[in-house]
Amino acid sequence: MPVYNAPTKDTQFILHDVLKVSEAATPGYSELERDFTGAILEEAGKISSEVLHPLNVVGDTEGCRLENGIVYTPTGFKDAFEQVKEGGWTGLDMPEQYGGQNMPYVLGTAVGELFSSANQAFVMYQGLTHGAASAILAHGTDAQKDTYLPKMVSCEWTGTMNLTEPHCGTDLGLMRTKAEPQADGTYKVSGQKIFISAGDHDMSDNVIHLVLAKIPGGPEGIKGVSLFIVPKFIVNEDGSVGERNGVSVGNIEKKMGIHGNSTCVMNYDEATGYLLGTEHKGMRAMFTMMNEARLGVGMQGVAQAEAAYQNAVEYAKDRLQGRDVTGVKNPDGPADPLIVHPDIRRSLMDQKSFVEGGRAFLLWGATMIDKAHRDGDKDADGLVSLLTPVIKGFLTDEGYDMTVKAQQVYGGHGYIEEHGMSQYTRDARIAQIYEGANGVQALDLVGRKLAQDGGKHVMAFFELVKNFCKENAGISEDYAKDFIEPLKAASKDLQAAGMYFMQNGMKNPNNALSGSYDFMHMFGHVCLGLMWAQMAKAAHAALEAGTSDAAFYKTKLTTGRYYMARRLPATQLHLVRIQSGADTVMALDAASF
Amino acid sequence: MPVYNAPTKDTQFILHDVLKVSEAATPGYSELERDFTGAILEEAGKISSEVLHPLNVVGDTEGCRLENGIVYTPTGFKDAFEQVKEGGWTGLDMPEQYGGQNMPYVLGTAVGELFSSANQAFVMYQGLTHGAASAILAHGTDAQKDTYLPKMVSCEWTGTMNLTEPHCGTDLGLMRTKAEPQADGTYKVSGQKIFISAGDHDMSDNVIHLVLAKIPGGPEGIKGVSLFIVPKFIVNEDGSVGERNGVSVGNIEKKMGIHGNSTCVMNYDEATGYLLGTEHKGMRAMFTMMNEARLGVGMQGVAQAEAAYQNAVEYAKDRLQGRDVTGVKNPDGPADPLIVHPDIRRSLMDQKSFVEGGRAFLLWGATMIDKAHRDGDKDADGLVSLLTPVIKGFLTDEGYDMTVKAQQVYGGHGYIEEHGMSQYTRDARIAQIYEGANGVQALDLVGRKLAQDGGKHVMAFFELVKNFCKENAGISEDYAKDFIEPLKAASKDLQAAGMYFMQNGMKNPNNALSGSYDFMHMFGHVCLGLMWAQMAKAAHAALEAGTSDAAFYKTKLTTGRYYMARRLPATQLHLVRIQSGADTVMALDAASF
Repeated sequence: MPVYNAPTKDTQFILHDVLKVSEAATPGYSELERDFTGAILEEAGKISSEVLHPLNVVGDTEGCRLENGIVYTPTGFKDAFEQVKEGGWTGLDMPEQYGGQNMPYVLGTAVGELFSSANQAFVMYQGLTHGAASAILAHGTDAQKDTYLPKMVSCEWTGTMNLTEPHCGTDLGLMRTKAEPQADGTYKVSGQKIFISAGDHDMSDNVIHLVLAKIPGGPEGIKGVSLFIVPKFIVNEDGSVGERNGVSVGNIEKKMGIHGNSTCVMNYDEATGYLLGTEHKGMRAMFTMMNEARLGVGMQGVAQAEAAYQNAVEYAKDRLQGRDVTGVKNPDGPADPLIVHPDIRRSLMDQKSFVEGGRAFLLWGATMIDKAHRDGDKDADGLVSLLTPVIKGFLTDEGYDMTVKAQQVYGGHGYIEEHGMSQYTRDARIAQIYEGANGVQALDLVGRKLAQDGGKHVMAFFELVKNFCKENAGISEDYAKDFIEPLKAASKDLQAAGMYFMQNGMKNPNNALSGSYDFMHMFGHVCLGLMWAQMAKAAHAALEAGTSDAAFYKTKLTTGRYYMARRLPATQLHLVRIQSGADTVMALDAASF
Repeated sequence: MPVYNAPTKDTQFILHDVLKVSEAATPGYSELERDFTGAILEEAGKISSEVLHPLNVVGDTEGCRLENGIVYTPTGFKDAFEQVKEGGWTGLDMPEQYGGQNMPYVLGTAVGELFSSANQAFVMYQGLTHGAASAILAHGTDAQKDTYLPKMVSCEWTGTMNLTEPHCGTDLGLMRTKAEPQADGTYKVSGQKIFISAGDHDMSDNVIHLVLAKIPGGPEGIKGVSLFIVPKFIVNEDGSVGERNGVSVGNIEKKMGIHGNSTCVMNYDEATGYLLGTEHKGMRAMFTMMNEARLGVGMQGVAQAEAAYQNAVEYAKDRLQGRDVTGVKNPDGPADPLIVHPDIRRSLMDQKSFVEGGRAFLLWGATMIDKAHRDGDKDADGLVSLLTPVIKGFLTDEGYDMTVKAQQVYGGHGYIEEHGMSQYTRDARIAQIYEGANGVQALDLVGRKLAQDGGKHVMAFFELVKNFCKENAGISEDYAKDFIEPLKAASKDLQAAGMYFMQNGMKNPNNALSGSYDFMHMFGHVCLGLMWAQMAKAAHAALEAGTSDAAFYKTKLTTGRYYMARRLPATQLHLVRIQSGADTVMALDAASF
């Protein structure tokens, strides 16, 4: 049985020592005092470890089942969901007006990581609801908000997002689902949607589907797509749940992982739908919350890696196998623990330095989303929009790789399902795919975001790194050598790649797009390098100030040095690949593959 | 339903254009004419596609089941196994004396790849038997050989290898299974073994277990381990199957993949065992065939990657999504096929260049094993022993990554089980773990093989690369620039890493061991770089000679150029990591993880 303990101390370090959230000018941030966030994280950690985590393997083993049109979630999910609802966790960052607690998104993200580490499949029921509620909040009429939001914020009703159809995922312009306007202002929605996470289940009184569909006669392709609210049960005038709508579950998909979440084929057969936002502007409405949604998926990458890492550490300390070549460490035992072996260390340090750096990156991103939403800060919005594909793509790719590394520490015991390590990899795998597959994230980054607003945001990022390096090079000689120099070098690689795209992408866009994936990864490394430089700075300051917890801060410095020395130089390789251009990538005709 | 077509043309290219097997002096190689190997591969391809491949998903879905002590394999496995036996495939490279066909190991490897691509879980029943039979062939008495080999070569009886116990995998010195000597010269074997592939099943009349156990009173640790033949049914004097032995199946493990193979917990309760080889020399006997066995696992990495790649290509050609940014390619359709997109190409080229390079590496390794076994060539034996951990570790790590890339091409359709792409990743994952987890391979490479015979074999490898570069730099200017220069650079990186180990490993062995994994991977890249340089040379020669199949050879050149430009430079990054030494890897105490 795997273990999970919320890493609240690490989260607190990032929130307060590094990001100094309670000192920030963002509205609502002054409430985020160390004790306050500590109490929230403590409580969230308890629910994660005691309620959600024990159901993680149960969900994987049992899965969801469809019987006579009804979807049943795994044993224990329903009770656990009640506890999460009662604790008010579902509306943490939602407006008070609709029953939420109006906390900043950064706190929601910090809590979300714990829940997601404990049970990703479970927390998705709440996560999808959050996404759907956010879209209604942004685009709904007052009546729509009043009808749906209070129940969705409390998760009495849950929500879904219906985009994909069998023949179209990324390219939604190919969509066939139709919405026929009716005399009463409603629409009749008909078509089939697939891969609908939390599509239906037995844990809420209603399911509010947000469905993309085309109104006949509208513009071709993606410009003719509108967004509709299609409730499972029609909501009566008085707010009560009324008759069943024309929506049903066609099937539950058999998947590699996240078995505890009901991934449904949804059939719409003249279901009553209500237009959300403006006709033909459905894509815009669906993607208003895209940065948040994608950051939430990036978070899953970190969360699964954290959970897997914790177990790998436990196993490496417990399992006796072989002897330390530099001298026996456990003379009374028949062998030394795995953790004495350098290659096991390498793996654990890869995991540890990723998880802690990734968490900082996520929370930094979340503060920018708060600045943008709560303070209307256009620069923060631009920067986080630029970084969103990096957060999503890089953190989920790396997060997955880290779960594989954690599994590997277990040897054969990682391959059998008994220890739960296989589940971490199988669950983490989906985050690389949904909410825009990672190749699409790379395309978004290089094809759109880099040049957005005249390249203003990427220039701002480089400026930020440059200024950080300039301002902090004097902290100490070691700090400059271990952190500032590697960060400068990596940032220079990233700039060189951007320059290559500018100079060669004009001639042939494939020269840029062939390097998009490498660029996304090198950008991610530079961001984690920046995070580690900031964390090391904070650790350095705490040690200078004579902290009573020197071991904690020294560990941060060591872990950071590992990242800078062993992981960050990956930028060099990515640059070489990028600069090799499109020639070898595009040379073959399709028949030659 | 996934597709699989044996890549016989590619195999033939390597065997004849590159390795020129029929011209080699190794005994038995003169038979390996192009037409002969072509006919064998053709036939093996047919069985793979038509018999084994259709059962791959069946095996994954049904798995094996244990009922009343009997293990049942998935539907269709038994019939398919009969066909494989009848075709004589199980004894391809076994001595004629015992019913085999005495073909070189290189041909067995070429055929094995096809079988393994088609159905890894299935082919393991035969593979484990081959391993056990090889050990009996090498260490058995004439009576033992006569008793077991004819039936094992034909797979009327199958075999297993019993090493792991619940508390020990890599460190077999901790073993607890006991073998008590009996007055009649036999032993009573008692203990529990786990992770026993093909441990029991319903497809053969007997299962011949090779079991490692300790004879009480023998030396401590690994030096007191002996190897025993423990048949499921005692074999009567007349060779017929007699009474049931004291061995039973405790459980079938629930695993991440290879569900079609029965991975058993085996309980030995005073089972009658027969010493194989010498008392206390069990490890040596078990590992006689280690190079072959590990090459066979490296082959699984390539095989799964090939199968997954074929499907990714099909999907990328079929699935319409988005438009080519440089101009519409499918104007009559609603969108262009995925394969027009540069990032999809990047992924497919990664896969293609790995699979073809990996196959060449495997077959080259197999020719060295043949030289060693058939010709007593000590240098070949030394070189292939050096390269074995690279073949196993690098090819299975990369093979796994490639199955993940292939799955990613499918987007959400790769995550659901319906298309079979998840199975390729789940099946490929085991190859990184069994037959010595890849971290152990890296340790074997850096801790043992590098320095073996005074470092003679690694020097020979560098010499081989150097000579190849010298002799072929004059082929053409392009060839020198695209192939020779990158190969030289990568080989220089590898030498620099070896030099770093020599200079710093003396002071502290952890300086070498912290870089062992990176070294294994950089070695793998250099080997694939060498393979691509050789394949490109052969392609160049064919084009110069005015081949009628110019497209095939040009594709080889393009694919090779991709590898040299985009994959091989990974050696630079590995070198940087290695040269950062052990400091950051080993700095933390165990409690700080």
